[in-house]
Amino acid sequence: MPNDLLIKNVRPMGGKLASIRVLGGKIAAIGDGSNAPEAETIDGGGAIALPGLVEAHTHLDKTLWGMGWHKHRAGPRLIDKIENERTLKKTLGIDSARQSARQIVLSLSKGSTHIRSHVDVDTEIGLQGIEGVMATRQRYREVMNLEIVAFPQSGMLVRPGTVELMDRAMAMGAEVVGGLDPCAIDRDPKGHVDQVFALAQKHGKPVDIHLHEPGEMGVFSMELIIDRTNALGMQGKVVVSHAFCLGMPDREVIDPLIDALAKSKIAIMTTGPAARPAPPVKRLAERGVVMCSGSDGIRDTWGPYGTADMLERAMFIGLRNNFRHDADVELALDVCAAGGAQVMGLKDYGLKPGCAADIVLAEGESVTEAVVSHLPRRLVVKSGRVVARDGKALIEAP
Amino acid sequence: MPNDLLIKNVRPMGGKLASIRVLGGKIAAIGDGSNAPEAETIDGGGAIALPGLVEAHTHLDKTLWGMGWHKHRAGPRLIDKIENERTLKKTLGIDSARQSARQIVLSLSKGSTHIRSHVDVDTEIGLQGIEGVMATRQRYREVMNLEIVAFPQSGMLVRPGTVELMDRAMAMGAEVVGGLDPCAIDRDPKGHVDQVFALAQKHGKPVDIHLHEPGEMGVFSMELIIDRTNALGMQGKVVVSHAFCLGMPDREVIDPLIDALAKSKIAIMTTGPAARPAPPVKRLAERGVVMCSGSDGIRDTWGPYGTADMLERAMFIGLRNNFRHDADVELALDVCAAGGAQVMGLKDYGLKPGCAADIVLAEGESVTEAVVSHLPRRLVVKSGRVVARDGKALIEAP
Repeated sequence: MPNDLLIKNVRPMGGKLASIRVLGGKIAAIGDGSNAPEAETIDGGGAIALPGLVEAHTHLDKTLWGMGWHKHRAGPRLIDKIENERTLKKTLGIDSARQSARQIVLSLSKGSTHIRSHVDVDTEIGLQGIEGVMATRQRYREVMNLEIVAFPQSGMLVRPGTVELMDRAMAMGAEVVGGLDPCAIDRDPKGHVDQVFALAQKHGKPVDIHLHEPGEMGVFSMELIIDRTNALGMQGKVVVSHAFCLGMPDREVIDPLIDALAKSKIAIMTTGPAARPAPPVKRLAERGVVMCSGSDGIRDTWGPYGTADMLERAMFIGLRNNFRHDADVELALDVCAAGGAQVMGLKDYGLKPGCAADIVLAEGESVTEAVVSHLPRRLVVKSGRVVARDGKALIEAP
Repeated sequence: MPNDLLIKNVRPMGGKLASIRVLGGKIAAIGDGSNAPEAETIDGGGAIALPGLVEAHTHLDKTLWGMGWHKHRAGPRLIDKIENERTLKKTLGIDSARQSARQIVLSLSKGSTHIRSHVDVDTEIGLQGIEGVMATRQRYREVMNLEIVAFPQSGMLVRPGTVELMDRAMAMGAEVVGGLDPCAIDRDPKGHVDQVFALAQKHGKPVDIHLHEPGEMGVFSMELIIDRTNALGMQGKVVVSHAFCLGMPDREVIDPLIDALAKSKIAIMTTGPAARPAPPVKRLAERGVVMCSGSDGIRDTWGPYGTADMLERAMFIGLRNNFRHDADVELALDVCAAGGAQVMGLKDYGLKPGCAADIVLAEGESVTEAVVSHLPRRLVVKSGRVVARDGKALIEAP
């Protein structure tokens, strides 16, 4: 039967050798492999078995992957990069359907089985990005769970017509309402945050807001988000992405803010940025804040970096947070796996019986070694189907 | 003849296709490949040709590479890690000859052809580390240029007997006098710096001082180093490694200090640390300061990270400095190649006729892509000899 497998000789989460039995696309049992069904048997060679990795913040619609090398020339400010990108989308011909498909296949080869992607909505591109990524979602629906955030990259209130486009994107089936720098970009923090939450209320959907604003400005915007989350009973439905302001050194300001985030069940997405103040992952975890991570833009007009590898991402988080103990590096990996699953509301996620058979075999003696080495994945299984081997996707990209 | 090669179909520094002719271990010509000698011919398949990468700051004597996974438990302070390491060297049996050999072979597989290694000298290990790495240097002399820094990791003045051991290490053939945090570890900045420079003067050798001290403390120590460099005419012979204090935000303090470093021809080594203030690479380059980089400790008792890959290191420097333009990422690579060569005083370094045939073939459409992707090296050549192919060293490790 398709989607039935017996994966022998693996170490779930780096523990003892075991076999994982997959039936009908789900994990049926983890044990000694006896009484195996007549299913395809795979020898894991002692590799570490992890649940599918979760890419919880990226921009599928605008990667330049496979389009030939692009020399970067954008100016230094955030708004320079936003405007540069709007122009290049046309002149370079960045097709959101084709490019999102390419990135999905890349992600599969690295062991990501779930993606939350922000997709640009603005008055120039309109809903083309959303339509393209939705076509890709349909095309790859059997091998990737994809959640779309309608994202006002160029600002919302500063560009009249954007709110209406966001509303249409949600009506078309985007799962999450996005937002962006209520002070720094939209210049009207109350107006921006009210509008984002109004769209969320209208469509009964969660919120995921990019917040690059540093220091006290970011703290102020975050307070506005916390207020509305609580007033509207949206605890557990809101993510603040980047949240650089949480990297402020002043703990008199930040510690109460972290507690307020925990109480409001607002999750934080961090990429572990090396050149920016960054949320302190361990302090956030200790105080009960859910965290997820993502590659952010992969080789796009914003910059050349990115490999779509969430094990490498866990290493970046570890390096950024000066994690050296194994338990801390394992926390960084958890952010890139179970944390993302929690943010995406996945009910059947995990390496245990009854869960979807989304399984990654990674090389390493320990989970920490798998993270710091992030060697090519030996095997990636999505819903019981083998989708990548030895670092190479078995699914076609355009 | 051995060490004669014709490497066809490569793009030197990412430029136009060319052939590189190697005669007697040196680059004889870079051109169209006509009039090739009767030498072994290699098809580079259009890969980018780079000069051998330079690992200018590492600790060969204490990597745990190949020793089985070590769970990290050291405390948070620098001194915790130093003391933890001194204990573990004995209990784990870290053999400096074996371990340095393993790391050298790993480095070769990534395209590094020159290494400067700090090697611990202290009153417990004595000169065992130096002897072990010297044995490795002899063993691999045909495939790796290795420079040894006698390094007082546990402090020098605070541990009587260390100065005498440093003196003996220099007499045995170490090439560089090391030092460490004159205020924070040795608690006597004047005494420490005077002693380091006295050893350098006695042996006629250069200096390379670890300076982790942050902020104003680091600035003070750096001023002491600058004063002695100038007073003793040692311009061009001094490196300050890490130099976290240069990452201070106060440009009123830092800009004059950078100018003083440039004037004294003191070089700066940075790993591009994500969790620490870091030297601003572009500002330093623009003001004429020579920079080099290195992996620092690779999978040792200090932490689990490190792959010995200087292309990945260039990516870390790029990420830390928020480099997005191609020219900036190329600067990061230059720090990991020509910058290190300058610090090590290499006379025959570079991808041009007359230079040693130390050549790396890297994958990528552009140099920046080679850095951000850092895929396995297609070929590594040292003095005209093929030492690695497709990411695998052809030289045996213990």
